[in-house]
Amino acid sequence: MRVLGVDPGLTRCGVGVVEGVAGRPLTMHGVGVVRTPADAELGSRLVAIEQGIEQWLDEHQPEFVAVERVFSQHNVRTVMGTAQASAVAMLCAARRGIPVALHTPSEVKAAVTGSGRADKAQVGAMVTRLLRLDAPPKPADAADALALAICHIWRGPAKNRLQEAVAAQTRLQQAAAESRPPNRLQQAAALHASKGRTK
Amino acid sequence: MRVLGVDPGLTRCGVGVVEGVAGRPLTMHGVGVVRTPADAELGSRLVAIEQGIEQWLDEHQPEFVAVERVFSQHNVRTVMGTAQASAVAMLCAARRGIPVALHTPSEVKAAVTGSGRADKAQVGAMVTRLLRLDAPPKPADAADALALAICHIWRGPAKNRLQEAVAAQTRLQQAAAESRPPNRLQQAAALHASKGRTK
Repeated sequence: MRVLGVDPGLTRCGVGVVEGVAGRPLTMHGVGVVRTPADAELGSRLVAIEQGIEQWLDEHQPEFVAVERVFSQHNVRTVMGTAQASAVAMLCAARRGIPVALHTPSEVKAAVTGSGRADKAQVGAMVTRLLRLDAPPKPADAADALALAICHIWRGPAKNRLQEAVAAQTRLQQAAAESRPPNRLQQAAALHASKGRTK
Repeated sequence: MRVLGVDPGLTRCGVGVVEGVAGRPLTMHGVGVVRTPADAELGSRLVAIEQGIEQWLDEHQPEFVAVERVFSQHNVRTVMGTAQASAVAMLCAARRGIPVALHTPSEVKAAVTGSGRADKAQVGAMVTRLLRLDAPPKPADAADALALAICHIWRGPAKNRLQEAVAAQTRLQQAAAESRPPNRLQQAAALHASKGRTK
Protein backbone atom coordinates (compact mmCIF):
# COMPACT_ATOMS: atom_id res chain seq x y z
CA MET A 1 0.00 0.00 0.00
CA ARG A 2 1.56 3.30 -1.11
CA VAL A 3 0.19 6.37 0.65
CA LEU A 4 0.77 10.09 0.13
CA GLY A 5 0.30 11.91 3.42
CA VAL A 6 -0.58 15.62 3.24
CA ASP A 7 -0.32 18.01 6.19
CA PRO A 8 -2.23 20.91 4.65
CA GLY A 9 -1.17 24.52 4.95
CA LEU A 10 -1.00 27.58 2.71
CA THR A 11 2.55 28.62 3.60
CA ARG A 12 3.93 25.12 4.12
CA CYS A 13 2.07 22.03 2.92
CA GLY A 14 3.88 18.92 4.14
CA VAL A 15 3.95 15.90 1.80
CA GLY A 16 5.38 12.43 2.36
CA VAL A 17 5.09 9.07 0.64
CA VAL A 18 5.28 5.83 2.61
CA GLU A 19 4.85 2.28 1.35
CA GLY A 20 4.11 -0.77 3.43
CA VAL A 21 1.53 -2.94 5.13
CA ALA A 22 0.66 -3.17 8.81
CA GLY A 23 3.06 -5.42 10.70
CA ARG A 24 5.95 -5.12 8.22
CA PRO A 25 8.78 -2.54 8.05
CA LEU A 26 7.74 0.64 6.23
CA THR A 27 9.61 2.39 3.42
CA MET A 28 9.76 6.12 2.81
CA HIS A 29 9.68 7.05 -0.89
CA GLY A 30 9.89 10.80 -0.52
CA VAL A 31 9.22 13.74 1.78
CA GLY A 32 9.02 17.46 1.21
CA VAL A 33 7.09 20.68 1.56
CA VAL A 34 5.04 22.58 -1.00
CA ARG A 35 5.58 26.25 -0.13
CA THR A 36 3.73 29.34 -1.31
CA PRO A 37 4.75 32.95 -0.63
CA ALA A 38 2.68 34.57 2.14
CA ASP A 39 2.44 37.85 0.19
CA ALA A 40 1.01 36.26 -2.98
CA GLU A 41 -2.71 36.38 -3.78
CA LEU A 42 -4.78 33.58 -2.30
CA GLY A 43 -5.91 32.31 -5.71
CA SER A 44 -2.37 31.96 -7.03
CA ARG A 45 -1.24 30.29 -3.78
CA LEU A 46 -3.97 27.67 -4.28
CA VAL A 47 -2.81 27.15 -7.88
CA ALA A 48 0.78 26.67 -6.64
CA ILE A 49 -0.40 24.07 -4.10
CA GLU A 50 -2.37 22.29 -6.82
CA GLN A 51 0.72 22.14 -9.06
CA GLY A 52 2.87 20.90 -6.18
CA ILE A 53 0.44 18.13 -5.19
CA GLU A 54 0.01 17.11 -8.85
CA GLN A 55 3.79 16.69 -9.15
CA TRP A 56 3.87 14.44 -6.08
CA LEU A 57 0.96 12.37 -7.43
CA ASP A 58 2.63 12.08 -10.86
CA GLU A 59 5.97 11.07 -9.43
CA HIS A 60 4.85 8.62 -6.74
CA GLN A 61 1.50 7.28 -8.03
CA PRO A 62 0.07 6.64 -4.54
CA GLU A 63 -2.92 4.31 -4.10
CA PHE A 64 -4.27 6.39 -1.19
CA VAL A 65 -4.04 9.99 -0.08
CA ALA A 66 -4.29 10.70 3.66
CA VAL A 67 -5.04 14.30 4.62
CA GLU A 68 -5.16 15.80 8.11
CA ARG A 69 -8.74 16.53 9.14
CA VAL A 70 -9.06 20.23 9.89
CA PHE A 71 -11.16 21.44 12.79
CA SER A 72 -12.60 24.91 12.96
CA GLN A 73 -11.99 25.14 16.70
CA HIS A 74 -8.18 25.15 16.51
CA ASN A 75 -5.93 28.04 15.43
CA VAL A 76 -8.72 30.32 14.27
CA ARG A 77 -6.21 32.62 12.54
CA THR A 78 -4.81 29.95 10.21
CA VAL A 79 -7.70 27.49 10.01
CA MET A 80 -9.24 28.96 6.86
CA GLY A 81 -5.98 28.66 4.92
CA THR A 82 -5.53 25.12 6.21
CA ALA A 83 -9.07 24.18 5.12
CA GLN A 84 -8.48 25.70 1.68
CA ALA A 85 -5.14 23.92 1.18
CA SER A 86 -6.72 20.61 2.29
CA ALA A 87 -9.54 21.15 -0.24
CA VAL A 88 -6.98 21.45 -3.05
CA ALA A 89 -5.19 18.26 -1.94
CA MET A 90 -8.48 16.32 -1.74
CA LEU A 91 -9.57 17.69 -5.12
CA CYS A 92 -6.32 16.61 -6.83
CA ALA A 93 -6.63 13.08 -5.45
CA ALA A 94 -10.39 12.67 -6.09
CA ARG A 95 -10.01 13.93 -9.67
CA ARG A 96 -7.69 10.96 -10.31
CA GLY A 97 -10.01 8.54 -8.54
CA ILE A 98 -7.52 8.05 -5.68
CA PRO A 99 -9.38 7.37 -2.39
CA VAL A 100 -8.91 10.14 0.18
CA ALA A 101 -8.91 9.44 3.91
CA LEU A 102 -9.02 12.06 6.65
CA HIS A 103 -7.32 11.44 9.98
CA THR A 104 -7.44 13.75 12.99
CA PRO A 105 -4.19 15.00 14.55
CA SER A 106 -4.83 12.89 17.66
CA GLU A 107 -5.47 9.74 15.56
CA VAL A 108 -2.13 10.32 13.83
CA LYS A 109 -0.26 10.94 17.09
CA ALA A 110 -1.86 7.88 18.69
CA ALA A 111 -0.96 5.74 15.67
CA VAL A 112 2.74 6.59 15.63
CA THR A 113 3.50 7.28 19.32
CA GLY A 114 0.77 5.46 21.22
CA SER A 115 -0.53 8.74 22.68
CA GLY A 116 -3.03 11.11 21.11
CA ARG A 117 -1.44 13.97 23.03
CA ALA A 118 2.19 13.45 21.95
CA ASP A 119 4.19 16.56 21.05
CA LYS A 120 5.87 17.37 17.72
CA ALA A 121 9.27 16.14 18.89
CA GLN A 122 7.83 12.76 19.88
CA VAL A 123 6.06 12.38 16.52
CA GLY A 124 9.27 13.35 14.71
CA ALA A 125 11.30 10.84 16.73
CA MET A 126 8.89 7.98 16.02
CA VAL A 127 8.66 8.80 12.29
CA THR A 128 12.49 8.76 12.19
CA ARG A 129 12.59 5.38 13.93
CA LEU A 130 9.74 3.74 12.00
CA LEU A 131 11.15 4.78 8.61
CA ARG A 132 14.79 4.16 9.67
CA LEU A 133 15.88 7.71 8.80
CA ASP A 134 19.14 9.34 9.89
CA ALA A 135 17.40 12.39 11.37
CA PRO A 136 13.84 13.69 11.91
CA PRO A 137 12.46 15.21 8.68
CA LYS A 138 12.26 19.02 8.83
CA PRO A 139 10.19 21.13 8.97
CA ALA A 140 7.63 19.53 11.29
CA ASP A 141 5.02 19.70 8.49
CA ALA A 142 7.09 17.18 6.49
CA ALA A 143 7.35 14.81 9.48
CA ASP A 144 3.60 15.19 10.09
CA ALA A 145 2.86 14.24 6.47
CA LEU A 146 4.86 11.02 6.89
CA ALA A 147 3.08 10.33 10.20
CA LEU A 148 -0.27 10.72 8.37
CA ALA A 149 0.78 8.19 5.74
CA ILE A 150 1.96 5.73 8.42
CA CYS A 151 -1.30 6.25 10.34
CA HIS A 152 -3.26 5.42 7.20
CA ILE A 153 -1.28 2.24 6.50
CA TRP A 154 -1.81 1.04 10.07
CA ARG A 155 -5.42 2.13 10.49
CA GLY A 156 -6.63 1.24 7.00
CA PRO A 157 -6.26 -2.55 7.26
CA ALA A 158 -7.66 -2.52 10.80
CA LYS A 159 -10.77 -0.75 9.50
CA ASN A 160 -11.01 -3.14 6.53
CA ARG A 161 -10.69 -6.18 8.81
CA LEU A 162 -13.44 -4.75 10.99
CA GLN A 163 -15.70 -4.20 7.99
CA GLU A 164 -14.92 -7.71 6.71
CA ALA A 165 -15.72 -9.18 10.11
CA VAL A 166 -19.04 -7.32 10.22
CA ALA A 167 -19.87 -8.39 6.66
CA ALA A 168 -18.95 -12.03 7.44
CA GLN A 169 -21.13 -11.92 10.56
CA THR A 170 -24.04 -10.52 8.52
CA ARG A 171 -23.62 -13.22 5.86
CA LEU A 172 -23.60 -15.90 8.59
CA GLN A 173 -26.81 -14.51 10.09
CA GLN A 174 -28.46 -14.30 6.66
CA ALA A 175 -27.44 -17.88 5.84
CA ALA A 176 -28.81 -19.06 9.20
CA ALA A 177 -32.06 -17.15 8.62
CA GLU A 178 -32.47 -18.58 5.11
CA SER A 179 -31.91 -22.16 6.26
CA ARG A 180 -34.86 -21.85 8.70
CA PRO A 181 -38.41 -21.05 7.66
CA PRO A 182 -38.90 -17.36 8.60
CA ASN A 183 -40.88 -16.74 11.76
CA ARG A 184 -43.65 -14.15 12.02
CA LEU A 185 -41.40 -11.36 13.26
CA GLN A 186 -38.98 -11.83 10.36
CA GLN A 187 -41.90 -11.94 7.88
CA ALA A 188 -43.21 -8.68 9.28
CA ALA A 189 -39.77 -7.11 9.14
CA ALA A 190 -39.27 -8.20 5.53
CA LEU A 191 -42.71 -6.83 4.57
CA HIS A 192 -41.89 -3.54 6.30
CA ALA A 193 -38.53 -3.32 4.52
CA SER A 194 -40.08 -4.00 1.10
CA LYS A 195 -42.74 -1.35 1.73
CA GLY A 196 -40.03 1.15 2.66
CA ARG A 197 -38.27 0.40 -0.62
CA THR A 198 -41.31 1.06 -2.82
CA LYS A 199 -42.22 4.35 -1.13
CA MET B 1 -17.22 44.56 -16.55
CA ARG B 2 -18.57 40.99 -16.40
CA VAL B 3 -18.41 39.40 -12.96
CA LEU B 4 -19.15 35.88 -11.74
CA GLY B 5 -20.27 36.01 -8.12
CA VAL B 6 -19.85 32.84 -6.06
CA ASP B 7 -21.57 32.23 -2.72
CA PRO B 8 -19.53 29.18 -1.67
CA GLY B 9 -21.05 26.09 -0.08
CA LEU B 10 -20.65 22.33 -0.33
CA THR B 11 -24.36 21.49 -0.58
CA ARG B 12 -25.40 24.62 -2.49
CA CYS B 13 -22.85 26.86 -4.17
CA GLY B 14 -24.63 29.94 -5.53
CA VAL B 15 -23.39 31.36 -8.85
CA GLY B 16 -24.51 34.46 -10.74
CA VAL B 17 -23.15 36.52 -13.63
CA VAL B 18 -23.74 40.28 -13.80
CA GLU B 19 -22.42 42.74 -16.37
CA GLY B 20 -22.23 46.49 -16.01
CA VAL B 21 -20.33 49.49 -14.74
CA ALA B 22 -20.99 51.64 -11.68
CA GLY B 23 -23.67 54.25 -12.32
CA ARG B 24 -25.33 52.41 -15.23
CA PRO B 25 -28.13 49.80 -15.27
CA LEU B 26 -26.82 46.28 -14.64
CA THR B 27 -27.58 43.15 -16.68
CA MET B 28 -27.92 39.61 -15.36
CA HIS B 29 -26.45 36.96 -17.68
CA GLY B 30 -27.21 33.91 -15.59
CA VAL B 31 -27.91 32.61 -12.10
CA GLY B 32 -27.93 29.15 -10.60
CA VAL B 33 -26.70 26.78 -7.95
CA VAL B 34 -24.02 24.08 -8.11
CA ARG B 35 -25.30 21.31 -5.84
CA THR B 36 -23.50 18.28 -4.45
CA PRO B 37 -25.11 15.39 -2.53
CA ALA B 38 -24.55 15.61 1.24
CA ASP B 39 -23.92 11.86 1.45
CA ALA B 40 -21.14 11.81 -1.18
CA GLU B 41 -17.46 11.72 -0.21
CA LEU B 42 -15.87 15.12 0.39
CA GLY B 43 -13.31 14.62 -2.39
CA SER B 44 -15.95 13.87 -5.03
CA ARG B 45 -18.09 16.79 -3.83
CA LEU B 46 -15.13 19.11 -4.41
CA VAL B 47 -14.63 17.61 -7.89
CA ALA B 48 -18.34 18.23 -8.65
CA ILE B 49 -18.01 21.86 -7.52
CA GLU B 50 -14.91 22.26 -9.69
CA GLN B 51 -16.79 20.91 -12.74
CA GLY B 52 -19.75 23.18 -12.01
CA ILE B 53 -17.64 26.33 -11.66
CA GLU B 54 -15.64 25.42 -14.79
CA GLN B 55 -18.90 25.21 -16.76
CA TRP B 56 -19.95 28.67 -15.58
CA LEU B 57 -16.53 30.11 -16.46
CA ASP B 58 -16.61 28.44 -19.91
CA GLU B 59 -20.09 29.66 -20.69
CA HIS B 60 -19.89 33.24 -19.40
CA GLN B 61 -16.17 34.12 -19.67
CA PRO B 62 -16.22 36.58 -16.75
CA GLU B 63 -13.42 39.14 -16.35
CA PHE B 64 -13.61 38.96 -12.55
CA VAL B 65 -14.70 36.40 -9.99
CA ALA B 66 -16.08 37.69 -6.68
CA VAL B 67 -16.21 35.17 -3.84
CA GLU B 68 -17.69 35.65 -0.39
CA ARG B 69 -14.95 35.96 2.22
CA VAL B 70 -15.42 33.18 4.76
CA PHE B 71 -14.84 33.85 8.45
CA SER B 72 -14.03 31.10 10.90
CA GLN B 73 -16.15 32.72 13.63
CA HIS B 74 -19.52 32.16 11.92
CA ASN B 75 -21.43 28.88 11.60
CA VAL B 76 -18.70 26.67 13.02
CA ARG B 77 -20.52 23.55 11.80
CA THR B 78 -20.53 24.49 8.13
CA VAL B 79 -17.53 26.83 7.93
CA MET B 80 -15.02 24.16 6.89
CA GLY B 81 -17.15 23.09 3.93
CA THR B 82 -17.67 26.72 2.96
CA ALA B 83 -13.92 27.38 3.11
CA GLN B 84 -13.24 24.29 0.99
CA ALA B 85 -15.86 25.19 -1.64
CA SER B 86 -14.48 28.75 -1.79
CA ALA B 87 -10.96 27.34 -2.31
CA VAL B 88 -12.18 25.38 -5.35
CA ALA B 89 -13.87 28.48 -6.83
CA MET B 90 -10.76 30.62 -6.31
CA LEU B 91 -8.55 27.87 -7.76
CA CYS B 92 -10.68 27.58 -10.93
CA ALA B 93 -10.53 31.34 -11.50
CA ALA B 94 -6.83 31.81 -10.67
CA ARG B 95 -5.87 28.89 -12.94
CA ARG B 96 -7.36 30.86 -15.86
CA GLY B 97 -5.69 34.09 -14.77
CA ILE B 98 -9.04 35.65 -13.83
CA PRO B 99 -8.61 38.09 -10.90
CA VAL B 100 -10.41 36.94 -7.75
CA ALA B 101 -11.84 39.40 -5.24
CA LEU B 102 -13.18 38.55 -1.80
CA HIS B 103 -16.00 40.56 -0.26
CA THR B 104 -17.37 40.10 3.24
CA PRO B 105 -21.11 39.46 3.75
CA SER B 106 -21.55 42.91 5.32
CA GLU B 107 -19.74 44.61 2.41
CA VAL B 108 -22.13 42.86 0.02
CA LYS B 109 -25.23 43.77 2.05
CA ALA B 110 -24.07 47.37 2.40
CA ALA B 111 -23.40 47.60 -1.35
CA VAL B 112 -26.84 46.43 -2.48
CA THR B 113 -29.10 47.60 0.38
CA GLY B 114 -27.16 50.44 2.04
CA SER B 115 -27.00 48.51 5.32
CA GLY B 116 -24.36 45.96 6.32
CA ARG B 117 -26.93 44.30 8.58
CA ALA B 118 -29.71 43.79 6.01
CA ASP B 119 -31.52 40.45 6.08
CA LYS B 120 -31.79 37.88 3.26
CA ALA B 121 -35.21 39.14 2.13
CA GLN B 122 -33.90 42.71 1.78
CA VAL B 123 -30.88 41.53 -0.24
CA GLY B 124 -33.17 39.43 -2.45
CA ALA B 125 -35.53 42.37 -2.99
CA MET B 126 -32.72 44.73 -3.98
CA VAL B 127 -31.09 42.18 -6.31
CA THR B 128 -34.50 41.75 -7.99
CA ARG B 129 -34.91 45.52 -8.40
CA LEU B 130 -31.34 46.27 -9.52
CA LEU B 131 -31.38 43.52 -12.15
CA ARG B 132 -35.02 44.18 -13.12
CA LEU B 133 -36.08 40.57 -12.47
CA ASP B 134 -39.67 39.35 -12.14
CA ALA B 135 -39.06 37.66 -8.78
CA PRO B 136 -36.22 37.22 -6.27
CA PRO B 137 -33.84 34.45 -7.42
CA LYS B 138 -34.16 31.28 -5.35
CA PRO B 139 -32.58 29.77 -3.33
CA ALA B 140 -31.01 32.60 -1.30
CA ASP B 141 -27.53 31.34 -2.30
CA ALA B 142 -28.30 32.26 -5.92
CA ALA B 143 -29.47 35.77 -4.93
CA ASP B 144 -26.36 36.18 -2.74
CA ALA B 145 -24.11 35.25 -5.68
CA LEU B 146 -25.72 38.00 -7.78
CA ALA B 147 -25.36 40.45 -4.87
CA LEU B 148 -21.64 39.58 -4.71
CA ALA B 149 -21.22 40.31 -8.42
CA ILE B 150 -23.08 43.64 -8.07
CA CYS B 151 -20.98 44.52 -5.02
CA HIS B 152 -17.83 43.88 -7.03
CA ILE B 153 -18.95 46.04 -9.95
CA TRP B 154 -19.78 48.91 -7.61
CA ARG B 155 -16.82 48.62 -5.26
CA GLY B 156 -14.16 47.81 -7.87
CA PRO B 157 -14.15 51.19 -9.66
CA ALA B 158 -14.39 53.06 -6.34
CA LYS B 159 -11.25 51.26 -5.14
CA ASN B 160 -9.47 51.93 -8.44
CA ARG B 161 -10.36 55.62 -8.30
CA LEU B 162 -9.03 55.78 -4.73
CA GLN B 163 -5.77 54.10 -5.77
CA GLU B 164 -5.46 56.45 -8.74
CA ALA B 165 -6.05 59.47 -6.49
CA VAL B 166 -3.38 58.26 -4.03
CA ALA B 167 -0.94 57.58 -6.89
CA ALA B 168 -1.60 61.03 -8.38
CA GLN B 169 -1.06 62.68 -4.99
CA THR B 170 2.21 60.78 -4.54
CA ARG B 171 3.39 61.83 -8.02
CA LEU B 172 2.56 65.47 -7.20
CA GLN B 173 4.52 65.29 -3.95
CA GLN B 174 7.48 63.65 -5.69
CA ALA B 175 7.44 66.29 -8.43
CA ALA B 176 7.32 69.05 -5.80
CA ALA B 177 10.20 67.43 -3.87
CA GLU B 178 12.31 67.03 -7.00
CA SER B 179 11.80 70.65 -8.07
CA ARG B 180 13.32 71.87 -4.75
CA PRO B 181 16.87 71.07 -3.58
CA PRO B 182 16.47 68.37 -0.91
CA ASN B 183 16.77 69.55 2.68
CA ARG B 184 18.84 67.72 5.33
CA LEU B 185 15.96 65.62 6.60
CA GLN B 186 15.16 64.36 3.10
CA GLN B 187 18.84 63.63 2.44
CA ALA B 188 19.04 61.62 5.65
CA ALA B 189 15.84 59.75 4.77
CA ALA B 190 17.13 58.94 1.27
CA LEU B 191 20.44 57.70 2.71
CA HIS B 192 18.58 55.55 5.24
CA ALA B 193 16.33 54.13 2.50
CA SER B 194 19.28 53.26 0.23
CA LYS B 195 21.07 51.58 3.15
CA GLY B 196 17.98 49.55 3.88
CA ARG B 197 17.85 48.42 0.27
CA THR B 198 21.46 47.16 0.17
CA LYS B 199 21.18 45.21 3.42
